[in-house]
Amino acid sequence: MKLASLKKGRDGQLVVVSDDLAWYAEAGHIAPTMQYALDNWADIAPHLEALATDLAHDVIPKHRFHERVADAPLPRAYQWADGSAYVNHVALVRQARGAEMPDSFWHDPLMYQGGSDEFLGPRDPIKLADEAWGCDFEAEIVVVTDDVPQGVSASDALKHIKLVGLVNDVSLRNLIPAEIGKGFGFVQSKPASALSPVFVTPEKLGEYWQNGKLHRALLVDYNGSHFGRAVASDDCTFDFGVLIAHLAKTRNLGAGSIIGSGTVSNRGADGGPGKPVSEGGLGYSCIAEIRMVEKIQMGEMKTAFMTHGDIIRIEVQDDAGHSIFGAIEQQVVTV
Amino acid sequence: MKLASLKKGRDGQLVVVSDDLAWYAEAGHIAPTMQYALDNWADIAPHLEALATDLAHDVIPKHRFHERVADAPLPRAYQWADGSAYVNHVALVRQARGAEMPDSFWHDPLMYQGGSDEFLGPRDPIKLADEAWGCDFEAEIVVVTDDVPQGVSASDALKHIKLVGLVNDVSLRNLIPAEIGKGFGFVQSKPASALSPVFVTPEKLGEYWQNGKLHRALLVDYNGSHFGRAVASDDCTFDFGVLIAHLAKTRNLGAGSIIGSGTVSNRGADGGPGKPVSEGGLGYSCIAEIRMVEKIQMGEMKTAFMTHGDIIRIEVQDDAGHSIFGAIEQQVVTV
Repeated sequence: MKLASLKKGRDGQLVVVSDDLAWYAEAGHIAPTMQYALDNWADIAPHLEALATDLAHDVIPKHRFHERVADAPLPRAYQWADGSAYVNHVALVRQARGAEMPDSFWHDPLMYQGGSDEFLGPRDPIKLADEAWGCDFEAEIVVVTDDVPQGVSASDALKHIKLVGLVNDVSLRNLIPAEIGKGFGFVQSKPASALSPVFVTPEKLGEYWQNGKLHRALLVDYNGSHFGRAVASDDCTFDFGVLIAHLAKTRNLGAGSIIGSGTVSNRGADGGPGKPVSEGGLGYSCIAEIRMVEKIQMGEMKTAFMTHGDIIRIEVQDDAGHSIFGAIEQQVVTV
Repeated sequence: MKLASLKKGRDGQLVVVSDDLAWYAEAGHIAPTMQYALDNWADIAPHLEALATDLAHDVIPKHRFHERVADAPLPRAYQWADGSAYVNHVALVRQARGAEMPDSFWHDPLMYQGGSDEFLGPRDPIKLADEAWGCDFEAEIVVVTDDVPQGVSASDALKHIKLVGLVNDVSLRNLIPAEIGKGFGFVQSKPASALSPVFVTPEKLGEYWQNGKLHRALLVDYNGSHFGRAVASDDCTFDFGVLIAHLAKTRNLGAGSIIGSGTVSNRGADGGPGKPVSEGGLGYSCIAEIRMVEKIQMGEMKTAFMTHGDIIRIEVQDDAGHSIFGAIEQQVVTV
């Protein structure tokens, strides 16, 4: 099934969304909020599934679903931890910063604890106070868990994935080097992230969800042009089972924990950083990567970070070209 | 007023606690949970204050308050960000690790985003899977905010502090160097923290709360012996206004955000690391500090990190010797 939260108060109003994202049915009589559903998933999910079936069979009241009025499925969450499953991305960004990447990054996942007190809705603007901060998007896959026990194995962790979605992990590139240098992770360089309009159960994803990876291309359009078409299951060093197990090594994870893949990134056919979409490549899921490639190829970074008015769109489609999670589409607005 | 959450479900049951911590009055008719109260603080707080007055005047039903059955005031929260206001602590710990401390740490606060999906109650055990991880306590002050706008000034930030309390920021010392080295902050080296039985409004603290600092000694007892008596307002480089403003530089903070001071740490009378309580000093608020002092004075670290059965107690008292926030008292249990 597919779930969304309409904008209402701090936590939204839970609705079940049709597979084609055209309709929704109110789910408030089953669970008022997405967090409540996740808190009681084993009891609640069968009722939501039944509602989704009724919606598909057109036997209950339904309403038009508009992505533009959707809030983040979890407008706030108790945990947001973002991994770096695509080590290729990390290597490129480090290279761009002139920082070395330890070999351990290939077998010990990088992960940071992010701020989870506010997630932006899929059409909410990115409010930027200072363009000099170097605002970038990062297109990623996320999963949402139920309660996960400390010390869970990577294979058992996969069973705790209840929902899958997309995130735009907004990053302030020019604030990152100083925070990395302090060693304490990101506080100022990672403002609020935006989530996709709907989250989808792994079962509903069918063959697109295998071994803890999403087997689809992430469609990243920047100011109306194709910017990234990286395949989320390729060059993915750590599946979500490994990422969850890493996070849960020393503590339990509460229901509704959101875990991110890190920026989806594919290598080029030659094993190198990969070409832009305009040159027949799969492109990039963040600006920092294309800047790195520009530096390698042309000696200087040419693509600017986002400024007022720039629009980033992130989506995943099925084989028929239908949107699976709906699209994140955000415009930068200086404030 | 003083507020607590009795153990009940995932978010506890909000109660108002008498100044002497002996009694509580149910507050469920005003706000079911602490988070609900913080979400609607301007409306709710006056009613809770009235209830506290009624409790003090003994004109409403009251029940015995037992710290041992209290949950964390916020058993889970949408944000936990821990600063390092006591730069002396950072300098010592870095020295112990053989790592250099940049001079910038004296004017740019260190802060990490912590896991907030589970806070332990004040008497909950520290469940430790591996003693080799080097389990340490860190006794700190915390504040809880209402909604804080992006870009808030340090002075305005002080107005957003609604509650003050204590935390034991449990740390796995032997996992920290590797995570610091990755630059992404703490994921595995910071398991769930414990909060004090009650949180207290700044107004109720009176003269003990001035300029965003708690003007009291933090009483840290380890296995029944005095271990730390550091004064929280001394050697505090960054007050809570500065810490909140640092966190809110690039984003809003949601109501119920918990911000920590970092390990409270005083220098010695000579400006050095300070003596143990047994030698007439103010001691330490974590084991890592005494180990550093031992290394300096005796050439080797002697005090071991916590193992099964060790008990840490953290408290703050008023001038009459009465507990202000109740005591955190946790025993390590290997699991």
